[in-house]
Amino acid sequence: MPTSPDLLLPTDPGVRAIARELYALAGPQPIISPHGHVDPALLAEDRPFPDPARLLIVPDHYLTRMLLSQGVPPATLGVPSVDGTPVETDGRTIWRRFADHWHLFRGTPSRLWLERTFSEVFGVDTALTPATADAVYDEVAARLAEPEFRPRALFTRFRIEVLATTESPLDDLAAHAKLAADGWGGPGGRVVTTFRPDNVVDMEFDGWADNVARLGEVAGVDTGTYAGYLDALRARRAAFVAAGATSSDHGHPTARTLALDADEAARLYDRGRRGLADAADAEAFRAHMLVEFARMSLDDGLVLQLHPGAVRNHNRKLYATHGRDVGGDVPHATEYVHALAPLLDAYGNDPRLRVVLYTLDEYTFTRELAPLAGGYAALYLGAPWWFLDSPEVLRRFREAVTESAGFYNTAGFVDDTRAFCSIPVRHDVARRIDAGFLARLVAEHRLSEDEAAETVVDLAYRLPKKVFKFGESA
Amino acid sequence: MPTSPDLLLPTDPGVRAIARELYALAGPQPIISPHGHVDPALLAEDRPFPDPARLLIVPDHYLTRMLLSQGVPPATLGVPSVDGTPVETDGRTIWRRFADHWHLFRGTPSRLWLERTFSEVFGVDTALTPATADAVYDEVAARLAEPEFRPRALFTRFRIEVLATTESPLDDLAAHAKLAADGWGGPGGRVVTTFRPDNVVDMEFDGWADNVARLGEVAGVDTGTYAGYLDALRARRAAFVAAGATSSDHGHPTARTLALDADEAARLYDRGRRGLADAADAEAFRAHMLVEFARMSLDDGLVLQLHPGAVRNHNRKLYATHGRDVGGDVPHATEYVHALAPLLDAYGNDPRLRVVLYTLDEYTFTRELAPLAGGYAALYLGAPWWFLDSPEVLRRFREAVTESAGFYNTAGFVDDTRAFCSIPVRHDVARRIDAGFLARLVAEHRLSEDEAAETVVDLAYRLPKKVFKFGESA
Amino acid sequence: MPTSPDLLLPTDPGVRAIARELYALAGPQPIISPHGHVDPALLAEDRPFPDPARLLIVPDHYLTRMLLSQGVPPATLGVPSVDGTPVETDGRTIWRRFADHWHLFRGTPSRLWLERTFSEVFGVDTALTPATADAVYDEVAARLAEPEFRPRALFTRFRIEVLATTESPLDDLAAHAKLAADGWGGPGGRVVTTFRPDNVVDMEFDGWADNVARLGEVAGVDTGTYAGYLDALRARRAAFVAAGATSSDHGHPTARTLALDADEAARLYDRGRRGLADAADAEAFRAHMLVEFARMSLDDGLVLQLHPGAVRNHNRKLYATHGRDVGGDVPHATEYVHALAPLLDAYGNDPRLRVVLYTLDEYTFTRELAPLAGGYAALYLGAPWWFLDSPEVLRRFREAVTESAGFYNTAGFVDDTRAFCSIPVRHDVARRIDAGFLARLVAEHRLSEDEAAETVVDLAYRLPKKVFKFGESA
Repeated sequence: MPTSPDLLLPTDPGVRAIARELYALAGPQPIISPHGHVDPALLAEDRPFPDPARLLIVPDHYLTRMLLSQGVPPATLGVPSVDGTPVETDGRTIWRRFADHWHLFRGTPSRLWLERTFSEVFGVDTALTPATADAVYDEVAARLAEPEFRPRALFTRFRIEVLATTESPLDDLAAHAKLAADGWGGPGGRVVTTFRPDNVVDMEFDGWADNVARLGEVAGVDTGTYAGYLDALRARRAAFVAAGATSSDHGHPTARTLALDADEAARLYDRGRRGLADAADAEAFRAHMLVEFARMSLDDGLVLQLHPGAVRNHNRKLYATHGRDVGGDVPHATEYVHALAPLLDAYGNDPRLRVVLYTLDEYTFTRELAPLAGGYAALYLGAPWWFLDSPEVLRRFREAVTESAGFYNTAGFVDDTRAFCSIPVRHDVARRIDAGFLARLVAEHRLSEDEAAETVVDLAYRLPKKVFKFGESA
Repeated sequence: MPTSPDLLLPTDPGVRAIARELYALAGPQPIISPHGHVDPALLAEDRPFPDPARLLIVPDHYLTRMLLSQGVPPATLGVPSVDGTPVETDGRTIWRRFADHWHLFRGTPSRLWLERTFSEVFGVDTALTPATADAVYDEVAARLAEPEFRPRALFTRFRIEVLATTESPLDDLAAHAKLAADGWGGPGGRVVTTFRPDNVVDMEFDGWADNVARLGEVAGVDTGTYAGYLDALRARRAAFVAAGATSSDHGHPTARTLALDADEAARLYDRGRRGLADAADAEAFRAHMLVEFARMSLDDGLVLQLHPGAVRNHNRKLYATHGRDVGGDVPHATEYVHALAPLLDAYGNDPRLRVVLYTLDEYTFTRELAPLAGGYAALYLGAPWWFLDSPEVLRRFREAVTESAGFYNTAGFVDDTRAFCSIPVRHDVARRIDAGFLARLVAEHRLSEDEAAETVVDLAYRLPKKVFKFGESA
Repeated sequence: MPTSPDLLLPTDPGVRAIARELYALAGPQPIISPHGHVDPALLAEDRPFPDPARLLIVPDHYLTRMLLSQGVPPATLGVPSVDGTPVETDGRTIWRRFADHWHLFRGTPSRLWLERTFSEVFGVDTALTPATADAVYDEVAARLAEPEFRPRALFTRFRIEVLATTESPLDDLAAHAKLAADGWGGPGGRVVTTFRPDNVVDMEFDGWADNVARLGEVAGVDTGTYAGYLDALRARRAAFVAAGATSSDHGHPTARTLALDADEAARLYDRGRRGLADAADAEAFRAHMLVEFARMSLDDGLVLQLHPGAVRNHNRKLYATHGRDVGGDVPHATEYVHALAPLLDAYGNDPRLRVVLYTLDEYTFTRELAPLAGGYAALYLGAPWWFLDSPEVLRRFREAVTESAGFYNTAGFVDDTRAFCSIPVRHDVARRIDAGFLARLVAEHRLSEDEAAETVVDLAYRLPKKVFKFGESA
């Protein structure tokens, strides 16, 4: 279906009229995508996309987990198995199976993203049903064969000004080097990287000790000591900055921070390397390293993003058969106020530091996140994330955090996605919701139209650009 | 007052028009009541109801607790005392006292349920006030004397297709046998039972050891050993299935589950029988038994309902004077993600198992319940329960869980009530709220009207029927 | 800008029309301000206010913390330093600096309060911008020089019927004596005090042991023993009652209560006085004293207000440089159900006791606070507080608590402010939100207009007056 101009805008006609005007300002802004998981090779190589199922369904765990929740195994949707057990490989079969369960997505953001992607990216307005599955598949497949649907062409059509991918310190950044060589990457470029060191920080990560050894090799620094480990991390951060990175990203089970002295940290590090670290050691080391990374940020300027609160691989059978990042994670309650105190005691009032906090636990919005962001110079609130990256929660986020933190302690929308083709609609949803929220403030006589007009553009464009240091010297 | 056709529908005229059309489809659907606490003897014996106060006020702890909260003791409202201390027995006096405090219920679901019951069940449209108390009493009393107001006549008039009551394994199911003999009960019947074993599972339940002994007698199996205990439970489940049960129900203080090996479980069981179990033992045994019951469900097909999170008898003075189930319980924070992991590790991906999760803690909707239900084949979300069984929370439930779990991982409305006459209005409220929520999705261009029309009937009728296995072979 | 008559009213025209009628009833009611932090000397001395910056910005930590969150140090806004380090003293400079950051407050209650204060209190309708900063400053300053803008004149113009300030038991209540002498204070007077004993109850309070010694001196009772300590507290409570107090107030990190026997309490007290109490001792003593104060309330009739859940001085650097109460506190998760059980076991069903519960944790509204208040005679819910004292949360408070607790277990609006000039707008905001909430109930056919009309005035005026015992014999 073609997109209604009033998609997601408030239903009251008076408020909707204001929201339309505000959206008219925000909608056309370029996209700033400061955090996501697009494979940089996609843009470096600029090859045609695979078939519609392999592009849009197989890698999208929002979709495969919903079908799993109704008893449809991921293998029947083509999700690769860990042990090489054969899985469905026929794109059309996967597509039909998915279409048979399309009704499961009513009221979900996945429904919205996919339908808008069909319509706006591929020009396919046929409503997906079991009966139209083949027709939609064929139409999308035909588009994908055209040169205008290669990644770089879409990037330009999507009006993406900058897209940050996410790489491990072990990554050689070859794709980013290719992008830089092509004039697409490097500092100030259109595609940049993000420093995500979880696999060398989290002792509970499979293969951590080996990863730390590899870190030493990649960095050319001996990681046999804690001091060497820190040097290696600094070296890789420098390499990431050279590849355009303006931020680091940290996915931790909790938001805990801890300022150990160097001797204690070194002891933990050694215990980890000798395979003697228990869960408490691993938590302490992760917590300490956040403070360490904040310290490094003061030197190299990287914005520190913190994504806490996921129980990874909660669905153990799914993890055993299909591995990580296929939809088996679940949020749990996340505490920020006491957890962040050591970091904030050290650097929370230093405006040179920028920490962007995300959450999977919306029940911290008014109690913890907004009061913290509204009281520390270093803190910004990231957009609702993952399970919360949806129209209703984006709306509740503004309703909850604005009163204590205002708009200007938030960091703008972050799509956080691997699904390249869905990037425009995700940003569009956020802009529509923000327009609707601001329109209500105007209609309730809490804000002038002029101020709302300025704010809606700030949220869509200026604020993420500024917070994530795109277009300013870091 | 007569019911407005727009009761509880969204106030925006455009959205209300859509909601009216959707409600017109859902409102007339037969009632599926898969979980509640109506006394089966009521329908087995089909005797006239008692006076209005004894029918509508005395047994309704929503009403008596609100008056208690304003200093009106339950004894003055006729709530029986534990020790035989005399309580008010005059129905009219109770009724007047209640009417004097009717303003306390403004904005509460009790107000809505009772006023709609007066109007729709009894045809009494006089607004209740202290001044009209006698008139309303007399009108309701006159209706109750008529044969059309006997339980079975109302059951038919209410368009109840199936009503599940709740019994302990110690119950001889005589009322259900009578219902079956009359063509009202048994498998596939209009009135069925539910297997609720808390009093033989929870070692902290008064008289647990005696109950376990009685369980052996009722089942004809020696419960002197853990193995015998399990056999007795299996035998009683079989008897409940024969009396039409399609589900079990479990009221636990927490959602904790635990997969003990048989020896450990047997040791706990013995410790309990010898009176040596402490609180941790009782919690472990309850947690383990949930996994055990899930295992039994795979064999006998009973849907497993879990009602965690009530602090029973929090008001100790109320408990001491009037006993349990008179309004002295209070919710507490409930954790699901870690608590359910053992059960989900064992059977969470098995679509043959159906676990319906309820909550008294709405601050788990987006963080825990929706992600879990949207990621495990066995899980469904039950309707908001007890303190949350209200228009505002029903609305927030859809707003919160739909985006991660969709509509089809929810189990439909459950009235959970002892108040037989309030069953139609309770279901009607849920249908109106769902119509309103879906209407907003349509008005915001997130769902087509056709899809909303199908969904609203699914939620009202098809989904609870399917999830609770009415009208399908278990 | 002049205040729109529809400020904060629902946007739907039909609902807004009802809300206007309801607000027309509530808006003109006199102000009952049963809890706040206005300095009684302000009204006792009735001197002109200082310059606009020193009146409206310097002491308002909502404002200074927001600027701190964007890197503007409190010293540059004139917030006094602990060690006498010079801070900005020029009112106009402070004002300009503040105006430069006015956009940070878009969508916050501070924006609303300040803008309405400009307009309604000072008649200044020039919109504040960096360009108009001087003009607004001059206009406000000119008003402040006029006799009609002295504190007592404003008090009368604000239609404040009664204002409670908050004092420590160590306070000699001289300002209140002056007020009484002038016919403004004393029992039943326009300005009364509140008994706030945290600095002699909380062993973790700086100088607790000295404070306890001083308590003995002020009360003329030896506090060398626990029994003497209790006697001293009783004596001070009596003095506060004589100065018009109808309530006590208790700011605790948690809501924990504990009923120790006298020997245990005495042992804790002695440990504290000898400097040997650890954090657990301090928590136990605070918890016990809440039960002790409830017991005293049964004798002297003081309403017990409990403000739990603030992590005091979370921003340690801010505390070190500027001391307490300058915006460095942050909420944390607050548990009520188990924490209050000892107090409720003892006195929860006694309607002579009134406990008003506040929260900084809105994620307890439906799970804990509403069920508790709807089930215990002694409990009332205070208005959302501090970070939650805002239009969106006031609305969510009604949406959340009304269904389990009704309107009549809530205690009415409390401004809790030091900012005397903002008192009218704060109460006005609450009245508008309540009018809007009730209007929706009417528009959804859940409440008659007559009942809504009665309720909106109850909430604005009659209920706080009754709950806090103004105008009734205690």
